[in-house]
Amino acid sequence: MNTLRQIREEVCEANRALAARGLAPLTWGNVSGITRSRDLVAIKPTGVAYADLTPDHVVVVDLSGNVVESALRPSTDTPTHLALYRAFTAIGGITHTHSPWACIFAQARRPIPCLGTTHADHFAGEVPVTRQLTAAEVQDGYEAATGKAIIERFATIDPVRVPAVLVAGHGPFAWGPTAAKSVENATALEAIAHMAFHTLMLDPNAALEPHILRKHHDRKHGPDAYYGQSPRSAPLT
Amino acid sequence: MNTLRQIREEVCEANRALAARGLAPLTWGNVSGITRSRDLVAIKPTGVAYADLTPDHVVVVDLSGNVVESALRPSTDTPTHLALYRAFTAIGGITHTHSPWACIFAQARRPIPCLGTTHADHFAGEVPVTRQLTAAEVQDGYEAATGKAIIERFATIDPVRVPAVLVAGHGPFAWGPTAAKSVENATALEAIAHMAFHTLMLDPNAALEPHILRKHHDRKHGPDAYYGQSPRSAPLT
Amino acid sequence: MNTLRQIREEVCEANRALAARGLAPLTWGNVSGITRSRDLVAIKPTGVAYADLTPDHVVVVDLSGNVVESALRPSTDTPTHLALYRAFTAIGGITHTHSPWACIFAQARRPIPCLGTTHADHFAGEVPVTRQLTAAEVQDGYEAATGKAIIERFATIDPVRVPAVLVAGHGPFAWGPTAAKSVENATALEAIAHMAFHTLMLDPNAALEPHILRKHHDRKHGPDAYYGQSPRSAPLT
Amino acid sequence: MNTLRQIREEVCEANRALAARGLAPLTWGNVSGITRSRDLVAIKPTGVAYADLTPDHVVVVDLSGNVVESALRPSTDTPTHLALYRAFTAIGGITHTHSPWACIFAQARRPIPCLGTTHADHFAGEVPVTRQLTAAEVQDGYEAATGKAIIERFATIDPVRVPAVLVAGHGPFAWGPTAAKSVENATALEAIAHMAFHTLMLDPNAALEPHILRKHHDRKHGPDAYYGQSPRSAPLT
Repeated sequence: MNTLRQIREEVCEANRALAARGLAPLTWGNVSGITRSRDLVAIKPTGVAYADLTPDHVVVVDLSGNVVESALRPSTDTPTHLALYRAFTAIGGITHTHSPWACIFAQARRPIPCLGTTHADHFAGEVPVTRQLTAAEVQDGYEAATGKAIIERFATIDPVRVPAVLVAGHGPFAWGPTAAKSVENATALEAIAHMAFHTLMLDPNAALEPHILRKHHDRKHGPDAYYGQSPRSAPLT
Repeated sequence: MNTLRQIREEVCEANRALAARGLAPLTWGNVSGITRSRDLVAIKPTGVAYADLTPDHVVVVDLSGNVVESALRPSTDTPTHLALYRAFTAIGGITHTHSPWACIFAQARRPIPCLGTTHADHFAGEVPVTRQLTAAEVQDGYEAATGKAIIERFATIDPVRVPAVLVAGHGPFAWGPTAAKSVENATALEAIAHMAFHTLMLDPNAALEPHILRKHHDRKHGPDAYYGQSPRSAPLT
Repeated sequence: MNTLRQIREEVCEANRALAARGLAPLTWGNVSGITRSRDLVAIKPTGVAYADLTPDHVVVVDLSGNVVESALRPSTDTPTHLALYRAFTAIGGITHTHSPWACIFAQARRPIPCLGTTHADHFAGEVPVTRQLTAAEVQDGYEAATGKAIIERFATIDPVRVPAVLVAGHGPFAWGPTAAKSVENATALEAIAHMAFHTLMLDPNAALEPHILRKHHDRKHGPDAYYGQSPRSAPLT
Repeated sequence: MNTLRQIREEVCEANRALAARGLAPLTWGNVSGITRSRDLVAIKPTGVAYADLTPDHVVVVDLSGNVVESALRPSTDTPTHLALYRAFTAIGGITHTHSPWACIFAQARRPIPCLGTTHADHFAGEVPVTRQLTAAEVQDGYEAATGKAIIERFATIDPVRVPAVLVAGHGPFAWGPTAAKSVENATALEAIAHMAFHTLMLDPNAALEPHILRKHHDRKHGPDAYYGQSPRSAPLT
């Protein structure tokens, strides 16, 4: 039970961070986290202001979407989150926002190309866009169909190396090993989308050399990563 | 008398929210609210700084514009607000701002097209622009003529489904069931104008599929809406 | 002596407002005020951070630039301010900034066209750009030559109706009846420059009808102005 | 030992200023300072959040990169900093960021042209871009190769007169006589990159006359500089 309380607190904190970072005006965004040992997902309730959110409001559902603990309704985007947790078994947290620059690329149905090392530090290649949903998919089980379209798009992409996607005409989903890390990736995504937009205005053919892309991603995330403090480093006190 | 006091407080609060959200530099904006039972409108006094505003400053007028309670002059835009309250009987609050991105479309005389779900969540279609006013309309009763032009533009549009307009060469008016909700719609309008501008720079032909537009608006505002907490949900405590 | 103390306080306050409004990163901006009865000008000292500024730091000079009271050097732009006070006898305060959007037009040597009512509310027509200075003017008495170029540009423009200018390749000067009002005009200038830039991107031929321009300026500044509280209105308490 | 403590405090303070000025989202940036008398460099540890940083976390290394004092790993960019300190003997502090507008030019591989006096006040000419690194350079000693490419680019440029560079596809390095001054130059760089981008959108051929460029740089930095308070001026109390 301890773990569940902890993940509710983490998810509450992560949702509040969305607002603090300016990623989610009004109530346009939600963060979830999963405890893999019990396959329970903690997620923001729908339509609740970030400032009002407490761990007690966070809704707990199982991977089929049954509410386990809560008097509130979970986010309307819950079926999308659940589909991703079922398909991407290495991830522990998901963030959905309507952050403006990522939405701009999503609305233009354009992937965010990797144009610099800021991008490469977080995403090992372009951030892809999903296909359009059919009218039938939108009609019934729209949010689950969104998850399905994301998973299809990642058939040949490793979601750990590219931890974000743009849903066509909608906005971004980002993920990571924890709820907090998924917010960090959503923050990075917004920053690189802003940079990419303006870089393309200066030079529509801009691109980063593949060897620098690989180097930057690997020095932070590869087996021989040397960015950040190792577990053997002295703790920050 | 209680209701009138309450609406003055709500209108004061809503005007101060304008400044807090960065929608109204200097004193460029005003919010009003109506109590339909008595047909009295509470509105910001003209030229008063938001930080100085108290409920006592809020001016109360009847639907013909007669000042009922106040030592101060009402906003110069009062005749526009009154025209909208008379024509759009379902609305309870109106916000006028010079928020930059909505003004940019108003200055370019271009409607804001619906390019994504953020837009569809709030406005069920493009946000329209009024026609130009004639020199005669500008000369006499300019602010009332502005209201008339808005109402003309909505002859075939439901103001509840599209709760905002761009006045050509001027800026936006947004509305909603309450003063606070009209500020929320003005906030959403500014965000979607910013996104639309940049989406159009990436792809001048961008558009959202009608079936997604309808789905997103209906899941939040339709008869079977499932976004947000229902009245039957447990209260947030 | 009382008046001089008062204007030092006003000028100190106005300079600090520059930073608070984000108009002057680092120390890129200065505000002055004049007491016309004694023809003394109070101005920011050069190179002092806004957060450190107190009324005692404010430098007082006469209209020829002689320091009357201060242990500090006045702003390097002082000769420009003095030239404007000598030529534009109706003004009481001047603000110079490097606010980004006004600088962008100044760097592109383009006047800011009047594209909407936000502009017309503050400036009765386009905000003009000065001519380039010659190499000789830049060499000797550069700052005074800047003032001369501004005055030349206003040979056929009323500086009370258009209270701002863009110095080519440099940035804006704005003015008003007091130091505080000059900061307000500098704030409005930055906002309308931002809007104008993006409006021109949507429509390079955008323009505001002259009859609306005139109406908006006159309802705020003309002999029959009806914007703001009149002296006969009850005071805000 | 006193000096070393002092520089650790200065470097800590300068790194925290990066975050406060919005130049470094997440942990994307690092500042260092050197004590020339002992050739010791104090630099941010890698991957530590700015809010958590204390002087004790700051890592001290010698000019060959040996850690002199610290339980933490220095920034991964340390070899770049050291190369610059060895080559540019007049500088005392270095700031590296991923500030968006400077990155946008770096990603587009375009120098920032001098388009106005804001630029000329800080940089005596365009801010240059480095050449691309070869695959071999990226493979081994990437960060040192970055330093080498910067130094090559400055073969005919005085790093005191142009205290910043854009690393192709990556981002900016700025420097100055102290760590704090290098942050100030990084701040100025970001502001002038933002202005330059939009000026180029209005006029792709914009340029500043060389005689104004020289005048503005010299009035602030030349032998007869008259901007700022001289040592003979009264102190600010």
